[in-house]
Amino acid sequence: MRIAIDAMGGDHAPGLIVQGAVEAAREWPDTELLLVGDTAVIEPLLQGQKPANLQLHHTDEVIGADEEPVKAVRRKKGASMVVAGQLVREKQADAMLSAGNTGALMTTGLLVVGRLDGIERPALAPMLPTMDDIGVLALDLGANMDAKPEHLLQYAIMGSIYRSKVHGMEKPRVGLLNVGTEEKKGNELTKAAYDLLTDAPINFIGNVESRDILQRSCDVLICDGFAGNIMLKSMEGTAGSLLNYLKDAFGESMMTKLAAAIMLPRLRKLKKKMDYKEHGSAPLLGLNGLVMKCHGSSDALAVRSAVRQARTAIQGQLTESIAAEISGK
Amino acid sequence: MRIAIDAMGGDHAPGLIVQGAVEAAREWPDTELLLVGDTAVIEPLLQGQKPANLQLHHTDEVIGADEEPVKAVRRKKGASMVVAGQLVREKQADAMLSAGNTGALMTTGLLVVGRLDGIERPALAPMLPTMDDIGVLALDLGANMDAKPEHLLQYAIMGSIYRSKVHGMEKPRVGLLNVGTEEKKGNELTKAAYDLLTDAPINFIGNVESRDILQRSCDVLICDGFAGNIMLKSMEGTAGSLLNYLKDAFGESMMTKLAAAIMLPRLRKLKKKMDYKEHGSAPLLGLNGLVMKCHGSSDALAVRSAVRQARTAIQGQLTESIAAEISGK
Repeated sequence: MRIAIDAMGGDHAPGLIVQGAVEAAREWPDTELLLVGDTAVIEPLLQGQKPANLQLHHTDEVIGADEEPVKAVRRKKGASMVVAGQLVREKQADAMLSAGNTGALMTTGLLVVGRLDGIERPALAPMLPTMDDIGVLALDLGANMDAKPEHLLQYAIMGSIYRSKVHGMEKPRVGLLNVGTEEKKGNELTKAAYDLLTDAPINFIGNVESRDILQRSCDVLICDGFAGNIMLKSMEGTAGSLLNYLKDAFGESMMTKLAAAIMLPRLRKLKKKMDYKEHGSAPLLGLNGLVMKCHGSSDALAVRSAVRQARTAIQGQLTESIAAEISGK
Repeated sequence: MRIAIDAMGGDHAPGLIVQGAVEAAREWPDTELLLVGDTAVIEPLLQGQKPANLQLHHTDEVIGADEEPVKAVRRKKGASMVVAGQLVREKQADAMLSAGNTGALMTTGLLVVGRLDGIERPALAPMLPTMDDIGVLALDLGANMDAKPEHLLQYAIMGSIYRSKVHGMEKPRVGLLNVGTEEKKGNELTKAAYDLLTDAPINFIGNVESRDILQRSCDVLICDGFAGNIMLKSMEGTAGSLLNYLKDAFGESMMTKLAAAIMLPRLRKLKKKMDYKEHGSAPLLGLNGLVMKCHGSSDALAVRSAVRQARTAIQGQLTESIAAEISGK
């Protein structure tokens, strides 16, 4: 199998991206990795240590973090991210991954890689943190602002297949984000989606409330991008404010500083638990091939872990399974 | 001025409601309080200590906490809550307050007290907790699931007037809950509402994100009931999960228990800060008279504090100000 890696996208690109690709190539000799980017920059970083299954694919254009996504993807046909997408479209790669501009990557997915037949809206599916560190796959958290019930149905099918193929879950519990757990709760969107989800080939457990997500009340959380984003940022803001309060409280006196010293490892663990960024890369589901979004702050370990996820997804025939389920509708 | 109090609604009714009414009557001799409920039950609770400005208004029906709101209000014309609403409608009282069934109180507001001319949806406006303990007035957090832009505009006007009349804020900052602070962010609802709010006679500061609410990034928060409810429960759930984690972490060993002993007052303060229920009673705005919702768990102090708020609102001619602003549109 072949995986294309955008060497030029992300806060630590190309240095740590290249390092991660080298490590991944050594770890999985059966996997060909294509590093897409400026060879003049990448080659010196390799220090002559290029594994045989790591190849360079030269291009000297790059999409910046602040560029307007649609314009950038349309104009820069030679950008590393866009070229990686073309490799997937032309079946020269089974998957691509990038830590670059999220909007541009979603646009690359839509315009370059292309949608699967029957998919109305591809969805970015990141993991929400949970107290047990297992996480909830969420679709979506901000891409599709005015979702229709049919979009939510497709999210549920795609998310369910992803958790089963990539995370090995047997019957992932799919929950619909709502204002109460009773069937008739919610707005017009959730009421209509509830009926569609009930009839879908998934393990639909009904409505779930945002207050229970951290306790992992479901494995796949379905919501429109507006509500999902409000939820995510409410959780982040509350955790941040509480941790700041604790920081101040622990710094107040000699005695509280003593208490802080005792509690420090546990507080660090809590902070890490709540850190959305710790929770790996996110697949962009519903495309003609696998696209993985790595966090902007990805280091070598994050790149390796994204390659691991991509391998599992390719081996499990994720894209083919989604295509079969959706075309069967 | 006269304020009707539903003596029979709430977890601690009638005992602590009656006690709160007696205390309020003593504190404000210029205010007549009408205790609505079963005199056979209320009189013994007074122990012969009835202040002159406290009157009893007998009725022996009550709406239970679990009754279906619309049915209950339609059938039980003699329920204490409904009778208190009638007193407001007939101008025999300037305001009413109740700690009973929230849905039934909203129905009483709509069907018995009646909407102000021009108001499309009355709104319950509770306070969200903030780290500085001042709070954000939110409209709404779950009543109107499929709000229209015009509803959000009216919420903003009513909430702004309330904070200025009752909380003495000069130019309350009105924020629109959204997924980003930039003008063009959001879904169809928030984009349309943004334009309406920009032209409204309020201090509109633009979009605000849910992660900043605890830092009081605005004084009046405008959102549809679905998103508002998701936000509220995300905040509650995150605070609850974090506090539980801390409780466990502090209980782990002798040393952590020592740390807990040092930190206890600060942790209690944090818990109280985050407790949504601590933040007073909520007005139901947009009606032909003032209706205040007290928390179900209200005690005597909560009743007194609701009477104080109602007095301020009546003195500030809250209802008349809202009517004038809305009819001027």
